[in-house]
This record gives sequence, C-alpha cells and structure tokens, in this order.
Amino acid sequence: MGNITKVSPLAPSGFPDLPVIEGVQFATIAAGVKYQGRTDVMLAQLAPGTAIAGVFTRSQTRAAPVLDCQTKIGQKSDQGAAILVNSGNANAFTGRRGIEAVEAITACVAKVCDLPQSRVFTSSTGVIGEPLPFERVTSVIEDAKSGLDAGNIAQAARAIMTTDTYAKGACATVNVGGKSVSIAGIAKGSGMIAPDMATMLVYIFTDALVDQDALQAMVSADADRTFNCITVDSDTSTSDSLIVAATGASGVDASTDSAFRDALHGVMQDLAFQVVRDGEGATKFVEIAVTGAATDADAKLHAMAIANSPLVKTAIAGQDPNWGRIVMAIGKSGAAADRDRLSIRFGDVEVAKDGWRSPSYSEENAAAHMKGEEIQITVDIGIGSGASTVWTCDLTHGYIEINADYRS
Amino acid sequence: MGNITKVSPLAPSGFPDLPVIEGVQFATIAAGVKYQGRTDVMLAQLAPGTAIAGVFTRSQTRAAPVLDCQTKIGQKSDQGAAILVNSGNANAFTGRRGIEAVEAITACVAKVCDLPQSRVFTSSTGVIGEPLPFERVTSVIEDAKSGLDAGNIAQAARAIMTTDTYAKGACATVNVGGKSVSIAGIAKGSGMIAPDMATMLVYIFTDALVDQDALQAMVSADADRTFNCITVDSDTSTSDSLIVAATGASGVDASTDSAFRDALHGVMQDLAFQVVRDGEGATKFVEIAVTGAATDADAKLHAMAIANSPLVKTAIAGQDPNWGRIVMAIGKSGAAADRDRLSIRFGDVEVAKDGWRSPSYSEENAAAHMKGEEIQITVDIGIGSGASTVWTCDLTHGYIEINADYRS
Repeated sequence: MGNITKVSPLAPSGFPDLPVIEGVQFATIAAGVKYQGRTDVMLAQLAPGTAIAGVFTRSQTRAAPVLDCQTKIGQKSDQGAAILVNSGNANAFTGRRGIEAVEAITACVAKVCDLPQSRVFTSSTGVIGEPLPFERVTSVIEDAKSGLDAGNIAQAARAIMTTDTYAKGACATVNVGGKSVSIAGIAKGSGMIAPDMATMLVYIFTDALVDQDALQAMVSADADRTFNCITVDSDTSTSDSLIVAATGASGVDASTDSAFRDALHGVMQDLAFQVVRDGEGATKFVEIAVTGAATDADAKLHAMAIANSPLVKTAIAGQDPNWGRIVMAIGKSGAAADRDRLSIRFGDVEVAKDGWRSPSYSEENAAAHMKGEEIQITVDIGIGSGASTVWTCDLTHGYIEINADYRS
Repeated sequence: MGNITKVSPLAPSGFPDLPVIEGVQFATIAAGVKYQGRTDVMLAQLAPGTAIAGVFTRSQTRAAPVLDCQTKIGQKSDQGAAILVNSGNANAFTGRRGIEAVEAITACVAKVCDLPQSRVFTSSTGVIGEPLPFERVTSVIEDAKSGLDAGNIAQAARAIMTTDTYAKGACATVNVGGKSVSIAGIAKGSGMIAPDMATMLVYIFTDALVDQDALQAMVSADADRTFNCITVDSDTSTSDSLIVAATGASGVDASTDSAFRDALHGVMQDLAFQVVRDGEGATKFVEIAVTGAATDADAKLHAMAIANSPLVKTAIAGQDPNWGRIVMAIGKSGAAADRDRLSIRFGDVEVAKDGWRSPSYSEENAAAHMKGEEIQITVDIGIGSGASTVWTCDLTHGYIEINADYRS
C-alpha cells in the first residue's frame, strides 16, 4: 500500500464540500485491521425509517459481507440502520470464518447501536483469503459510536480507502415540489493492487423521503448506466457494493420526482467517473459511445470490448489514433456488426466511414485529439438503433508497476 | 517493426529441421509491400489431388482474404492448388478495394500456376486500413514461381513474419499401416503491434492421403483444443487463418488413422505454443488447467477468464502467487462456480482448498514455482466433470512498450 503515493493525474482538484444530510451520522476510527497510522473503520448510523437500496457485484465468488447484505436489502423497516465498513481486509474467500466474522461484527453493531441485526450492513475491502481479525473491529465500535457526527462524511470517505490515490465524494441539491433535498455520496476503488482487491464501495445518502421499492428501482436502473458502465481492467471485484440510504428527514417525498432522479444520477455518475479517474496507472479518461447497434445490449458488448481491449487501451496510452484496433475489438465482441457500415470518430475527427478510412481523415487532427486528457471515441455500427456509452482509462506502465512490480 | 529486435526469452533454441513434404513446393520473394530488405511474399504450390482444410477467425470484421478463403474451403477438386501470403499489409478494413486486391492476386496466381482461381488461397498480414498495393504482389508472382522448391519451407516461415521475434516451425513423422508419412507446419503471430494486426497464420502440409471431409473434421476439432485455446491479450485478429494441406503424395491413406491424428495434433499444439512463447513482452509460458466445472464449455470460460485477466497476468509477471486474483477471475467468468468448493494449485503447491487458503499452503513453495519460466495453474471448480486447458503468457512492461510507446 505504501508504494503508491502519487495522486492520479486525472484527480479532481480537491474533495468537494459535501452537505450535511439530516438523519445520518458518521464516525471513523483506527482499528489496526491491517494499516497502521490511519483510520480503517467507518460507521454510519441512519435514523429510523430510512429506506435502503443496494446493488452488489455479480461475481460468483462474492465475499461474505456481500452475501449478508444481499439477504437484508429490500426488507422494509421503520427502524434505524447502520453501515459498518472496514478497510485492509476484504473478508473474501475466507470460508466459514468469513460468515462468522460478519455475524460477529453485525451483532456487535446491532447491540451498540440498539438496532435489529437485520438492519446492519457491512462491507470489507482489502487483502483477500486472510481471515478478518474481526475482534479488532468489534473492539472499537463502542468508541466509534461515541464519535458519531453528521459532519464527518469526508473522514468517512478517507477511512474506506485502500489503493485509492484520492478520496472520492459528490453531492447535489435538488428542488422537489418547491422544497430542497440534498444528496451526498462517497466512494472508493481504483483497480487492484497486490494482493488487495480494489473493491468499489459506494455509499450515497439523502434526506429525501423515498419509498423503499421506488428507491431500489431507481438505484438498480441507474447503476446499469453508471457503475456498470465503467471498467478499469475488466476485472470484477468479489466485493463491489453500492448502498443508497434515504433518511426521509426532509419530509419531502421524492419517490416519483424526476428532478430527484436526475440529481441522484448525477451523483452516481460523478462518483463512477472518479473511480475511473483513479484507475491504476491511468493518464487518460476515455468515453466510448456506441450507436447504431442492433440492440442496446449489443451496443454495450461492442463498447465494453473496445474499453477492455488491451490493444485499444495501450494505443490510447501511446496517444495513437489507431482505429484498426477499434475495428478489431468490434469484430471480437460477439455482437452483430457489418464491417462495411462502421464509422469511427476520435473526438470530432472522423477516422473511418463505411468500412474504410474516412476520405476526410487527417492523421494530424486525430493525433491532436489523442494528446488530450479526455478521449472520446464514437462508433456508429450502422445497422440499428441500439446505443450504449461506457467509460474507461488507458493501460500504461503505471498499471504494470502497481500490479506486477511489487511483491505482496 | 524495426523497434523489436530482441528475441523472446521463451523462444525455442532454433528453427527445426523440417522434412520435405512431397507434393508441395515453396518460393519466397521480396515484393516491397511495406518492408524493405526482406522477403514478404510466400507462394506454396500443391500437387493435384491435394485435400485442403481450413479454420478461420470468427471476427465479425474479417479481412477480405479470409472471406475469400472461406468460400473456397471444402470444395473437392482433383486439381492442384496454391497458397499466396504477403506480409506488411493485412488488406483488412479496406472495403471494396480489399475484394479487388484479393481478386487480382488470386487471378494472377491462377494464371501463372495454371490453376482454377477457386484453388488459390491467399492471406495478408500487417497494417490494416491501408489499401494493399497488390500490383507489387502480382508483379513478382512469375518470378516467385520460377523459384519454387520443395526445400524452401524455412524461408517460407520467415517471409510471413511481421512482429514475430522468431520464425516458427514444427514437424512429425508418423507410421501409418507400416508406412511413414510426414507433417511439417509453419506459423506466424505474436500479439499486435502499432498499427499492425498480429494475425496468426498457420500452414501445415503432409504427404498423407486424407479424405477432404475427414481432414476438415480433424482440423476443426483439433483447432478447438490448440489454436482456440491460446491467448496472448484476449484480442482477436481480423485475419487469423489455419490451412492444412494433405498432398497424398505418399499414397498412404491416413483418413481414419489415430496415430496420424495424434501427430497432427502434436504439430498444431507445438505451433500454438510457439505463438504464445512469442507473445508480446512475454517472460512466462502459462498453462491453466481447469477441472470439475459443470461442463467443458464452463471450464473453458473459467480458464479463459483467468488467462485473460490483466491482474492474473501481471501477478505472474511479478512472480507473485496471488491466488486471490484467480478466485476473482473465476467469479467474473460467467460460468458456474461455488466459492467454497474451489481448489487452486500453482505447480504442485496447493494454495487454496475448499474455498479458503490451503492448510498446507507454503508461500515459499508457491513463490518458488512462480520464479520459473513455465507456470502451471490448476483449478478444480469442484462441482462437475467439465475440463479445459488453455495457454497464455504474462503481461509485462514489454507489452506496454511494444503497443503504447511507439507511435505508428
């Protein structure tokens, strides 16, 4: 962990000034799970009546805390809730001991915070395959609780970091029926680092009043066009978790409000982009927009094949407008394509049209676009109306350094 | 092209001494398609009655020569045949001009070699999206024909190279019903290099007499467990082609002979391994054997997810026995798995068992295995009897250097 000290060149200028969300309080504490000299446990306590929605990794080898959260999400409750996150150990691939650790932590939080255990959600991120020394976590929960404060969300963002080069936060204030509600979220994730899983963890809070089912539907749908549309290296963590909590403290019902939905989307997209911008070794932020595919699902297959292609990603790192590699990625994606109808743009520069190099192609203009920090690749498959946009970063020596050069 | 001068550390000690295959002659010539100072056209002429089988890329953006070969393969003929390969330009994503180039080249070879055009097979490998200057090829075919010689197969292996760091050949001699038949093959391929596609091209010749349909069945089945089980970087060329020609000159019918089939498998596997060993930046040759999956197809999904994971590949480059990344790859493969039944070995060292670190795990022993040039990863999914083995290489700074550091 100590090896990575340089902040990503794509990082935002600083951590945003997040609004206080009524109905939620945060505490952080150093439990020494693995890291020394920093906080590694985050406790968020939520007011009674908070609606909680979640989206989790689809990995078949999901970690114990994820499996536990999945059994609890969606249950309606008038009671409060808590989220407990530790960094330093992912409690993944830990067999029966993993379940015991989740049980011990959630039981302890439930007791200390006077909540039913079914309302305690926990995530772990860090090394995998090592038993989580859960006593280090449970032994600090009482102390953590005493430090709960509505103003501590920035500290929370820092306590959940593992290989991140910067803390990630985003917020929105939105007018719902003449009244203001707020949304504030934090995230961690950047790829992976030996031997840690760079799990993506995201926690978003709002004081809006949102029906449980409406919140889950909103979050599930939006995750599909934000967090499920980003990729750093095609590798999927065993622990990815997104939890959205609506405390309702504002008294403003936003269950069917489109402005609220848009604002939530904005926060989710902002955090998703921040994860890509902290991608291991990233020097370019890349948007890949595919249109004209047979279906939206086909468009996403094409877009993800491009985004995950090592040859496309290295070409971008090399500032090379190598559209041949885009054609290759489309060809291998498994989705329908017609070579002779493809068009490809880098930024505003049309590089290929109707299956061949564009007559207006200017290598100089294309190369100029590739020199920027933000790369836009637009592909029109030319056979239908399916569309999808995904976001990724380039593949550089930095990725190899982080993942191969240091032994665990 | 001139940038890569260092031969892969995994290269064989030298090009093998390939036997002369009666019924096939080779010629090579410098046409100056792109490269200067080297041969870039290979012509192979096959005796009348030669049976020809082929397997081609499944890319949806296949190059013109591939599409042309696919229409011709499988037609029975008593006439001779020819294979014409150029390096330096892939004639891929070249629209109508690509078809015209194939038409011009095959017509010219047919005329010069007195063959029906339907018996002329052509492949192109090199830069994509540039029109193939086919006149450079057609203008040398007459000269090439005059140089045809049964002993020229090693020269043929060199003429088809693009980014390969060494020429690739393999052979076998097999006893069929008391008589000897020979097999000799050549291949090219190593990954990709800006802006060239590192198409894999393979040509195998035998003097055995093999029924056309039997040959195609044999080649298709074996390609599925050799060339379709290797991966360097998960990226699929638009031009991959494998052609196997049985001249029948030995008069020995091997259509149903299992020893012949085994020998052909040996040659195909040898060439496939040589392609992996020339993988861009490769420093380790990696075998991934998956057993105990629900089906063979699921086993291959797991094996390929491991083989293509950038995090697994960088861990291998870093000599890190990072089994957590193997678990991650299995989890994301899309095939069925049960976390708590997984077992994983690096070489003979059991690192994980029943979903957790093996009780006998020795970091020291596992690390010792990872230091070798040949890495073996064995995974038992523990839920069925499906099995698959695939081969790959590691992901190193060399790959980034080759694909990102040099502008086209």
